[in-house]
Amino acid sequence: MAEPPKEQLDRLIEAIEAEDRPAIRDVLADLHPADVGRLLESLTPEQRDLAWAEIETESKGEVLVEVAEGVQSDLLEDMDKSEMVAAVRGLDTDDIADLIPILPDDVLADVLFTVDKVARAGLGEVLSYPEDTAGGLMDVDTLMVRGNVPIRAVIRYLRLLGRLPEHTDKLFVVDRKSRLRGILTLANLLTAPPENRVKDHFDNEPKVFKAMDPEDDVAERFQKYNLISGPVVDEDYKLIGRITIDDVVDVIRETADRSVMVRAGLSEEEDIFAPVRRTTRSRSVWLGVNLITAIIASIVIGQFESTIERLVALAVLMPIVASMGGNAGMQTLTVVIRGLGTGIISSSNARKVLKKEFLVGSLNGIVWAIAVAVVAVVWYQDLALGMVIAVAIFVNLVCAALAGVALPIVVQKFGIDPALAGGVTLTTVTDVIGFFSVLGLAALFLV
Amino acid sequence: MAEPPKEQLDRLIEAIEAEDRPAIRDVLADLHPADVGRLLESLTPEQRDLAWAEIETESKGEVLVEVAEGVQSDLLEDMDKSEMVAAVRGLDTDDIADLIPILPDDVLADVLFTVDKVARAGLGEVLSYPEDTAGGLMDVDTLMVRGNVPIRAVIRYLRLLGRLPEHTDKLFVVDRKSRLRGILTLANLLTAPPENRVKDHFDNEPKVFKAMDPEDDVAERFQKYNLISGPVVDEDYKLIGRITIDDVVDVIRETADRSVMVRAGLSEEEDIFAPVRRTTRSRSVWLGVNLITAIIASIVIGQFESTIERLVALAVLMPIVASMGGNAGMQTLTVVIRGLGTGIISSSNARKVLKKEFLVGSLNGIVWAIAVAVVAVVWYQDLALGMVIAVAIFVNLVCAALAGVALPIVVQKFGIDPALAGGVTLTTVTDVIGFFSVLGLAALFLV
Repeated sequence: MAEPPKEQLDRLIEAIEAEDRPAIRDVLADLHPADVGRLLESLTPEQRDLAWAEIETESKGEVLVEVAEGVQSDLLEDMDKSEMVAAVRGLDTDDIADLIPILPDDVLADVLFTVDKVARAGLGEVLSYPEDTAGGLMDVDTLMVRGNVPIRAVIRYLRLLGRLPEHTDKLFVVDRKSRLRGILTLANLLTAPPENRVKDHFDNEPKVFKAMDPEDDVAERFQKYNLISGPVVDEDYKLIGRITIDDVVDVIRETADRSVMVRAGLSEEEDIFAPVRRTTRSRSVWLGVNLITAIIASIVIGQFESTIERLVALAVLMPIVASMGGNAGMQTLTVVIRGLGTGIISSSNARKVLKKEFLVGSLNGIVWAIAVAVVAVVWYQDLALGMVIAVAIFVNLVCAALAGVALPIVVQKFGIDPALAGGVTLTTVTDVIGFFSVLGLAALFLV
Repeated sequence: MAEPPKEQLDRLIEAIEAEDRPAIRDVLADLHPADVGRLLESLTPEQRDLAWAEIETESKGEVLVEVAEGVQSDLLEDMDKSEMVAAVRGLDTDDIADLIPILPDDVLADVLFTVDKVARAGLGEVLSYPEDTAGGLMDVDTLMVRGNVPIRAVIRYLRLLGRLPEHTDKLFVVDRKSRLRGILTLANLLTAPPENRVKDHFDNEPKVFKAMDPEDDVAERFQKYNLISGPVVDEDYKLIGRITIDDVVDVIRETADRSVMVRAGLSEEEDIFAPVRRTTRSRSVWLGVNLITAIIASIVIGQFESTIERLVALAVLMPIVASMGGNAGMQTLTVVIRGLGTGIISSSNARKVLKKEFLVGSLNGIVWAIAVAVVAVVWYQDLALGMVIAVAIFVNLVCAALAGVALPIVVQKFGIDPALAGGVTLTTVTDVIGFFSVLGLAALFLV
């Protein structure tokens, strides 16, 4: 159990390569589903199939919810319909809901048919909200109590129940119509005098989530207010479920992951060992977009062919100008995208950010204009060339700062994720302005 | 209370600009410290000082722990020594521990002098471990029980206590020497028959953290096993504290944040509204590194000046080759860095990843070589030029794939964060190989 993951993986790969089925079962037995999922993600599709065959059907559902979507579909390919139903039907409603997009329709129908009535009703409720909202994220196993019940009776009720839903840190206090009135924490329940009533000890101003709240807002508030679980209500303030921190942590991880992957035009659900052709296809779109932006920059250079012919040093130095602009701009862009994401930057202070970054860009522009000009003059012994490069660097760094602030704000207004589109548009701007300012100034003053 | 953050910020800025102190207090009153922190981060240093002056000293400590380090030091500048002591001494031990790096030594001494004996001992324990370990992350307010105590007695004890530490979801079962024997969840405590003993219901194989476990491992395991809190033990298995999910969520957010910021050479603790000069200085290092790599690429171009002079189309087309390589390489690099971070890629399967990315790079190389060659031939009506560009694209995309796998693995072996160094080294490689292959092939076959 305490064996490090690396050794487990080595042992598993060895067993798979020897096609030693008992040894494969031996490695996977007793592991937490999350650990099994991690191991499967570390295997190639062929190795994965062999390992998957040695996992018991009843455990497969719990492993499925732990792996990336790309890997899920690969694993499902090896299962027949009845096996899928058997694997999935024992899961929590919110986990079933997560798997629904990748399950075949007839399997889904069978799962809904086999789960019990309460679970089916709950599943229906969860499914009626988009996946990325509080409603799509919630569990329906809420424990409700009424305000006028004595603490003692609540404790007796829980003892009769025998088992609390996972991550229960509080009970929900509701009125006759199931409308949320407040929360009673287990800590309160344990420390309150047993003869008192729930309403003497409950919190009647809890943090509440509306079913249609976006999951990012939910995550933000969980983090801000250090919540373990929170109630979800519908438009009538009726309690319909609860969100628990473990699902919120997954949202936080996925959002963070997505923001890194999306910057390189990748999906966060990518399977590292997906077939070569599928990966090539999925990455091509991004390379196509990049080709178009690169051609735009090249067209700018193409306007100045005769200038370059007469002073070939320009071809040597112009990539430095473009590159410095691109890097300075990416710094501003990264800061602004994060500020927009955390809500620290909004329309109230966007102008202040623009002003500050303009000043930083100007100051950095002066510093690096001098530095690059020195390089150019030492290299080519040409003071005028140095001057042109210096001015071009300054212009490009100032424009990079302005674009780094403006682009993500504009792009977001159009409903596009600035992390996805910001980088490409920014480097297009800094390449075009970098090449144009070097070559344009050279055409005017040097040749 | 339910007012959206954007409106709060607008109202606060308005009040600050009118220097209307009661209005400032009015906005900030009743807000959660996390919300106050967010608002302060959205202000310029001058605005921030005015708002900070209107916050009560007793609340300032809780706000301080919520803001980024850059903002913390800005706020501390406005406080005198006695105010700092008053603000900090009421905080939880782990929060005080977090503030210690930025507190002046004499303030720290005073804080240690004024907190009570138990807190001081706890603070000493937390401070004896590095900040980024389980020991540095833990709280010391653990509730311990002995295994042979009846459930009924535990409940009575908690009632006498009157209040449980925040985020208590379990009690820790220890032996006479405070060595951890297991855990008893509040859910178990509430549902177990009162006459039974703790040892009949406790989990004697809980997930345990060693004081020196790195915080990233702690976060990984909290997420994997859906934990709310977990015990921290020293080398003798003595219980010394507990880690709670709220602190782990902060670690996850900070790690994710850092990985995005570090790619642009930024610190995750940057204050968006820091003074222009400080920001310019902190961003200069990265631009300096970038200048060096840009000069390396330019030196490569410089070797082929006469080639460019004779065929200026090369200067126009070579940035396309470098840019396609850079983008394809960044995709591979991003996937590999994530795989290393999650542990999905390790030495056991690195060769398989290399093989797959090589094949993806080759396939993409063929596709985009043809596409770019068509562009070149249409543009310059020169078939030989198109051939050279095609071969250069193919070479650069294959090299980009290999470098994208190899660089982060090698860099990590040297103990450097691949997210920090990977991008710069990769684009240096793709620029150098891109320029060299275009110009070198042209020198051999075209001019």
